[in-house]
Amino acid sequence: MPATVARPVGGWGLGMGPGVAGGTAGPARELNPEEVVRLERDRVVLLDQRRLPDEEVELECRSAAEVAHAIRTLAIRGAPAIGVAAAYGYALAAARGDDLAEAYRVLAGARPTAVNLAWALAEVRAAGDPAARARELHAEEAARCRRLAEHALPLFAPGTRVLTHCNTGALATGGYGTALGAIRRAWEEGLVASVLVDETRPLLQGARLTAWELERLGIPFTVVPDAAAGALVAAGEVDLAITGADRIAASGDVANKIGTYGVALAATAQDVPFAVAAPSSTIDPATPSGDAIPIEERDAREVSERFPARNPAFDVTPAHLVAAIVTEEGIHRPPYSVSLPQASATAGRA
Amino acid sequence: MPATVARPVGGWGLGMGPGVAGGTAGPARELNPEEVVRLERDRVVLLDQRRLPDEEVELECRSAAEVAHAIRTLAIRGAPAIGVAAAYGYALAAARGDDLAEAYRVLAGARPTAVNLAWALAEVRAAGDPAARARELHAEEAARCRRLAEHALPLFAPGTRVLTHCNTGALATGGYGTALGAIRRAWEEGLVASVLVDETRPLLQGARLTAWELERLGIPFTVVPDAAAGALVAAGEVDLAITGADRIAASGDVANKIGTYGVALAATAQDVPFAVAAPSSTIDPATPSGDAIPIEERDAREVSERFPARNPAFDVTPAHLVAAIVTEEGIHRPPYSVSLPQASATAGRA
Repeated sequence: MPATVARPVGGWGLGMGPGVAGGTAGPARELNPEEVVRLERDRVVLLDQRRLPDEEVELECRSAAEVAHAIRTLAIRGAPAIGVAAAYGYALAAARGDDLAEAYRVLAGARPTAVNLAWALAEVRAAGDPAARARELHAEEAARCRRLAEHALPLFAPGTRVLTHCNTGALATGGYGTALGAIRRAWEEGLVASVLVDETRPLLQGARLTAWELERLGIPFTVVPDAAAGALVAAGEVDLAITGADRIAASGDVANKIGTYGVALAATAQDVPFAVAAPSSTIDPATPSGDAIPIEERDAREVSERFPARNPAFDVTPAHLVAAIVTEEGIHRPPYSVSLPQASATAGRA
Repeated sequence: MPATVARPVGGWGLGMGPGVAGGTAGPARELNPEEVVRLERDRVVLLDQRRLPDEEVELECRSAAEVAHAIRTLAIRGAPAIGVAAAYGYALAAARGDDLAEAYRVLAGARPTAVNLAWALAEVRAAGDPAARARELHAEEAARCRRLAEHALPLFAPGTRVLTHCNTGALATGGYGTALGAIRRAWEEGLVASVLVDETRPLLQGARLTAWELERLGIPFTVVPDAAAGALVAAGEVDLAITGADRIAASGDVANKIGTYGVALAATAQDVPFAVAAPSSTIDPATPSGDAIPIEERDAREVSERFPARNPAFDVTPAHLVAAIVTEEGIHRPPYSVSLPQASATAGRA
């Protein structure tokens, strides 16, 4: 089990509001990539996202197995961020002289749905210097998010009221964020009026993490129950719905946090564009359509301790409900069977 | 504030499983109407639904204001049940010689969305003996639910896998239940394979109350997060979605617990029938369409104590997503502008 270190992160103490951090802060306080996850000489250190927003504490992982445990227990989550964490975990195993086949196996099995994890692990395994490649991957991920956010700007117009689901910010990506990065970039351009944040059952990653990030960034937001999203779209309170993705099939079908399909259905029913923002590493040309994406079911006790329950973690939104997919390459429009292969082929993964 | 009385209800002690009740119980244990709410000489006594499923305790209300408080704080909820409770509250005020105009005002204002409440109050106010009329209304409500459940049987076929939202059982109606009554009746006929129960944020009335009722009735069920309903419908795991209604407009638009619209969208998108089960007293001919239905917003702190939040309690499902509306009069099919006025005109309310 990784050790928890109650080290205030970036100078933010418990109970300190935004803007109180030592020295660097204005009213908006960006989360740096290395505050989300970093490789030190003998450990991988990450911000424990399970404790947010109440406590800001770091978790120290001293082996690939401890990193895998942190991923499995959602101390770090978000497809790009777990790819980076797994790469660091592999690099840590290499630095320790551990069994690298075993490190690969335990890290690759930590979360079956996210394609980034397998991709990042393959990258560091093939590298001469796994630590250098892992840090490079992390920097590339952050840079990709910034490019993605630039490309997403045309989805916004002055006064756009946005709805988002789950957490796709710096916490989820190890950098700037995907859908939340796009919102943040559009906010900087004066294009965002407000953000509706689905609380995102079962683990409340919207209500806990997205709200925490938006508060720090000074962007006005409101948390709503997942089941309220459709009604608020129908009430004309949403101009754009935008989420991340865990995996995008060649067809444009999108696997993402459970509830995304409902957001897409409601948006489409009300002629509100539903867009997906994800790095091109999320696009899996080997997955022809959503049917082929394995859907994790998490521990049902997260839903009910007393009664029989099920806890699917992801759903698949069919391509016909997706108005646009934004990657670091640009905005991809239907038909995705034409526009997506071009994106993934140029992303350095072929 | 009403007083809580830790009197075990119907002989069920805390921690006693189904079937342990004194004398009357088999493996299935029906909740009697008077266990949900009843009028005694100087008080209205109701099962405190906020404490379920963990504790089974009764709440004693000694005035109309205390009954209104119980309704407002969801100690009793469900459109038919709060109509009955309000009728008893008015009858209690009459028995005490209280100011009846004030009793009417405070009870009518307890929940603005439910049309049954205003209707039940008008009935007891017009009656020579308010207590007798209130008890009669309660018995009529239970009888109506049983007729409704009979009429709903053709919606089911052997092996039907049902999805429902919120709680529409004996707890919600003071009797047999509407959508859950229909499921129960179909189960008795061997037509129900299993029930998926949306947990129903923000107050988890599905995960707490529907699950508790289904467990007592011995009907197999699984609790799922609201956001998972769409994915399970899309996965082909649902043959029928059926919910209750808080108000049905003349057009067939249905106001019901937040999240119902999402269930209807997903069902319709997957060619699964979405049906509504409600007593005809829920149909409001004076409300032309869903736009005219006031939507309550509850305390946002139920959603987030820390961040800005909104908490709409209901949504409106447009008639074009509703395959059938079942009342005690029969099954009503589109176009509802033709089929519904006939129903409400024969329900003794015109």
